[in-house]
Amino acid sequence: MSDNVTIVVHSGEMDKLYSALIIANGSLAMGMEVSLYFTFWGLLRLKKKGLSKGGLSKWNSLGLGKLMVKLRMKKANVASLDRLMADFKELGGRIIACEMTMEIMGIKKKDLREEWIDSYGAVGTYVVDARKSDITLMI
Amino acid sequence: MSDNVTIVVHSGEMDKLYSALIIANGSLAMGMEVSLYFTFWGLLRLKKKGLSKGGLSKWNSLGLGKLMVKLRMKKANVASLDRLMADFKELGGRIIACEMTMEIMGIKKKDLREEWIDSYGAVGTYVVDARKSDITLMI
Amino acid sequence: MSDNVTIVVHSGEMDKLYSALIIANGSLAMGMEVSLYFTFWGLLRLKKKGLSKGGLSKWNSLGLGKLMVKLRMKKANVASLDRLMADFKELGGRIIACEMTMEIMGIKKKDLREEWIDSYGAVGTYVVDARKSDITLMI
Repeated sequence: MSDNVTIVVHSGEMDKLYSALIIANGSLAMGMEVSLYFTFWGLLRLKKKGLSKGGLSKWNSLGLGKLMVKLRMKKANVASLDRLMADFKELGGRIIACEMTMEIMGIKKKDLREEWIDSYGAVGTYVVDARKSDITLMI
Repeated sequence: MSDNVTIVVHSGEMDKLYSALIIANGSLAMGMEVSLYFTFWGLLRLKKKGLSKGGLSKWNSLGLGKLMVKLRMKKANVASLDRLMADFKELGGRIIACEMTMEIMGIKKKDLREEWIDSYGAVGTYVVDARKSDITLMI
Repeated sequence: MSDNVTIVVHSGEMDKLYSALIIANGSLAMGMEVSLYFTFWGLLRLKKKGLSKGGLSKWNSLGLGKLMVKLRMKKANVASLDRLMADFKELGGRIIACEMTMEIMGIKKKDLREEWIDSYGAVGTYVVDARKSDITLMI
């Protein structure tokens, strides 16, 4: 049985999503199995166009400027979040969308990037995966 | 020996507390042992009336409106934080309050919901529990 | 082989850094091995004078006042972040600086507290350590 990584994506902040996806893809590349549980603000990022809003605002607040950040990310070979998500799926990562959040926020399956989502689950789904995981994180 | 979950409740944000308690109660329901370490802003939520302040502000900022959120939560059978805490205790969950935070913030035991708190501890208490835990999280 | 703790220091918020370092130093004191991965806003705290900016702002917002917080921390024997970092290194803790963040943010080695940093790494370094860790956290 391979090692497992389980990350709760609670936050919708882009920089945290970056960190989570970089760790997730790195783990997949090293042969681990990875599951991401999108809940609360994190779930909103699974909406259509959910990854394209407000992305670099915090980096701008550093005074770097949007274009500068983009140039540097390109130079450092840092992929966009959309690219990181596509890589995550291609490498075999699993995405679970939190049904409770969908109910509270009035989100329908058709509002989401369904092609990314492996299952719609509740906390039990998370716990079953997390208790056998070697790395558990929450952002 | 059963499996263990250990969560550091550092943040005082209500939505994060929701996520933590839902994971905690789900884990208890599945037969795991769960300890929550309340520290920093999290500890303030253990104060009397600490769970009733500012709860839905972030959800309101989504434009959902307080009443709408409450209605949807009711429809989705999502309990209030107070109910989730009561369930947590009833299911056998343990709550540890950080003594250092109490000293820094000038909080006395009598200011806290003492009926919820199993012990008052320092980092050593946390580490002993966390190193034998299957799921370790921090919010 | 001793037990391991691995913490991703993504956030640059001082109160979270406090929690992370207190857990880290407590774990070291109990004989565990601890690695801290500084990335994104966390990495900025490794810059020269990075620990001295904006430290107590959140506590002030509690209405405690800067001087009051300092007095209480002193009374409670809570060390400054600088002291906690020095203790962490003295106790044998390892610090890894994220190279990708350095590239994106245009940070050079000479801008950082190099005496604290054990290595400059990427996600692979983190995953190798984290998968064998007993406690994995992210702030």
